[in-house]
Amino acid sequence: MSSTVARPLAAEFIGTTLLLAAVVGSGIMGDRLSAGNMGIALLANTIATGAALVALVLTFAPISGAHFNPAVSVADASRGGLSWSRVPGYVAAQMTGAVSGVWAAHAMFGEPILMVSSHTRSGAPQAFSEFVATFGLLSVIWGCSRRRAAVVPFAVAAYIMSAYWFTASTSFANPAATVARALTNTFAGIRPADVVPFVLAQACGAAAATVLFHWLAPALSATAHGVVAVSAREGDLV
Amino acid sequence: MSSTVARPLAAEFIGTTLLLAAVVGSGIMGDRLSAGNMGIALLANTIATGAALVALVLTFAPISGAHFNPAVSVADASRGGLSWSRVPGYVAAQMTGAVSGVWAAHAMFGEPILMVSSHTRSGAPQAFSEFVATFGLLSVIWGCSRRRAAVVPFAVAAYIMSAYWFTASTSFANPAATVARALTNTFAGIRPADVVPFVLAQACGAAAATVLFHWLAPALSATAHGVVAVSAREGDLV
Amino acid sequence: MSSTVARPLAAEFIGTTLLLAAVVGSGIMGDRLSAGNMGIALLANTIATGAALVALVLTFAPISGAHFNPAVSVADASRGGLSWSRVPGYVAAQMTGAVSGVWAAHAMFGEPILMVSSHTRSGAPQAFSEFVATFGLLSVIWGCSRRRAAVVPFAVAAYIMSAYWFTASTSFANPAATVARALTNTFAGIRPADVVPFVLAQACGAAAATVLFHWLAPALSATAHGVVAVSAREGDLV
Amino acid sequence: MSSTVARPLAAEFIGTTLLLAAVVGSGIMGDRLSAGNMGIALLANTIATGAALVALVLTFAPISGAHFNPAVSVADASRGGLSWSRVPGYVAAQMTGAVSGVWAAHAMFGEPILMVSSHTRSGAPQAFSEFVATFGLLSVIWGCSRRRAAVVPFAVAAYIMSAYWFTASTSFANPAATVARALTNTFAGIRPADVVPFVLAQACGAAAATVLFHWLAPALSATAHGVVAVSAREGDLV
Repeated sequence: MSSTVARPLAAEFIGTTLLLAAVVGSGIMGDRLSAGNMGIALLANTIATGAALVALVLTFAPISGAHFNPAVSVADASRGGLSWSRVPGYVAAQMTGAVSGVWAAHAMFGEPILMVSSHTRSGAPQAFSEFVATFGLLSVIWGCSRRRAAVVPFAVAAYIMSAYWFTASTSFANPAATVARALTNTFAGIRPADVVPFVLAQACGAAAATVLFHWLAPALSATAHGVVAVSAREGDLV
Repeated sequence: MSSTVARPLAAEFIGTTLLLAAVVGSGIMGDRLSAGNMGIALLANTIATGAALVALVLTFAPISGAHFNPAVSVADASRGGLSWSRVPGYVAAQMTGAVSGVWAAHAMFGEPILMVSSHTRSGAPQAFSEFVATFGLLSVIWGCSRRRAAVVPFAVAAYIMSAYWFTASTSFANPAATVARALTNTFAGIRPADVVPFVLAQACGAAAATVLFHWLAPALSATAHGVVAVSAREGDLV
Repeated sequence: MSSTVARPLAAEFIGTTLLLAAVVGSGIMGDRLSAGNMGIALLANTIATGAALVALVLTFAPISGAHFNPAVSVADASRGGLSWSRVPGYVAAQMTGAVSGVWAAHAMFGEPILMVSSHTRSGAPQAFSEFVATFGLLSVIWGCSRRRAAVVPFAVAAYIMSAYWFTASTSFANPAATVARALTNTFAGIRPADVVPFVLAQACGAAAATVLFHWLAPALSATAHGVVAVSAREGDLV
Repeated sequence: MSSTVARPLAAEFIGTTLLLAAVVGSGIMGDRLSAGNMGIALLANTIATGAALVALVLTFAPISGAHFNPAVSVADASRGGLSWSRVPGYVAAQMTGAVSGVWAAHAMFGEPILMVSSHTRSGAPQAFSEFVATFGLLSVIWGCSRRRAAVVPFAVAAYIMSAYWFTASTSFANPAATVARALTNTFAGIRPADVVPFVLAQACGAAAATVLFHWLAPALSATAHGVVAVSAREGDLV
């Protein structure tokens, strides 16, 4: 594999590792320090996740686009941004990165590395929550990357911070994160049996937002490729 | 209806839906997780609302101006921004969007969809709070859109976060949101009987700020139209 | 008084009114909702104050420079920014605005309008805290306004949010705010007997930072006038 | 010593003083006000530290680059940014500044000036946490300073806010801060015996990120010098 192919994949892997370490690690710390008040624990988890998104998207966007999320990569490809041939590599980097982030969090907090979650997140309200969460996330990405690419890191982070609280599922909104979070039996975990409904709802939400913004902002397809996939263009990179 | 007319209305509808889902949904989550400490619940509600405003204004401003608020649309029209003929459509989209956002929050949290609030918010201090809240909101919009349009999403979000705490009413500052919040018997609700005084106080506050800034920043009327109503110009859109 | 003289004074008056309403009002709300946990109350007060500063400085800076603080106006004049002849008007607008903000907060929360604080804030650590708080505030203003004027609202707000927690006095750092806060017997109050030591320490801190940055950033005096006092130039305004 | 040599050193000294005063002071305040809920204390410490970083990096970056951290200065020198001859001065200013910041916090809060910490932070998870914390910090710096220098203050602050929660060590990530925090027996302290493992882990993390980004972003060495060390160039300063 040439460096120009390997670099974006390494960026997706490392970025997703740090993102999941932040999500899971801050959940553990919040849980330990909040003396049973789950509101305080989720506030900490919210601030840590939003701040991580700001820092990591700013850091890795010039190299890989900083998707960190298969739903974003597939949606981007569907509109002609990322080429389809690169999607499998992106998704593989995101999935393995997410799992390695969960394991890194376990190592930092002295938890067993290998776990499976027993945290039940089932039922129609949870699935609807994931539909709304991912619909909103892709709306923000399509809406902002169109004209104001520089604000995407802040808009995405702000959206996720809000959705942690306004959805009943705390807004996973990311299939790679959902699978990886089945591997931690801590604050941020999800029971493996609940993963498939979450991922299906996320896919529907992402598709709905992508179709909607195709109509809502028709100029998008002609101008936004370079925004979402900005650093996937090797010519810009070296 | 042509697409160029429908798009801004769809943007106002979807944006206001997501905004009210954020306000009401985060209120429910905050209430459930904070173990009775209303300070923690309001902190969560504040962060979720402010972050939603940042994300949603950045997302929808290029399409509709991202008013999400009849007081803003009417004030903008009064200064020659949005044309008066478009105001009824905007207000209808905001009202129906706000109600649908409340219902979406109920669906996500497994609450009954149809409710009426029993949360009393009456008395002169509450009405004065809404006057101050909306006066400040419109001051921020007129002051910032004049020269620094790019910061409007951040200024508005920051203002509302502050006003959630410094007004006794937690700063509704939005007639569409006020009406819709009468339809939820959760943290963010307001008793129907208290809606009219709130809306009247909001109208007075918006009018006072608009008159004040007409004098305070006279250049405004000549230059700011394109800012508040930036994306209502179809030529920019397609 | 001509409009070009009156406008900046009105901006200082209204901005300082809203700032003090935010400081005092959010203190009352935080105190009422936090069930006796002063950490939660101060977190709320911190977020509300910082967010208010972001919104209000962005709003009023183009009109008056958005000083809201006699220490800033005097320091600016000492380096040739604001002309000395305008300082008394600025300080009078700030003092009366601060008092009216305290009273507005009382009205919004149904408190008696006229009060005197009994909150003791005395001793050397408190005075040293105010010296450090104001030294840091003026350092941030001089350092940022020199080359990055657009970030001043965010830098000042961030600094004050931090100083609320890292100084023992919760960082008043503003003589007008200090005097006005003697007139509220709520969370944010200060006993009248403690006002003079606070103001003296603030004056020393502001002077120290101004002298330091005169040496640390010598180019400042030639280029920064228009930054701190940007909108005091009527030619820019109309 | 000429002024052009002395100014950046003074900026590193004062900036690091204020940064450590913020870290230690807000820890003391958080501890005192949170009624034993360590989650609330760490939330306060997080917000105060992040906000201080935003304000101080914006303030001092044009003068010294605003490193405040020997790991950053050495990493910058290793890639040709800061000249090696200036590194000892930078590190000395950072070390003495950090200690003076701890003492300033003690003075503000009426604590004994001279203390030694008894806060145990030992074991492999803590050391691994510091490796991850510093690896992430340098990744953010290298990734952002390459193309988006204006966002570095926000990216660094956001990263540290997140890492306070997602690492088990609360992310010291700074050898000067680590040594200085051994001199406070308050919330932010660290037992002297635990300092060396922390510093070694930080050095490894910084080195790993620097090597990684040398491969990940090869254009970096040719273009980023002026970013990290922007104001160390005297020609820009005067």
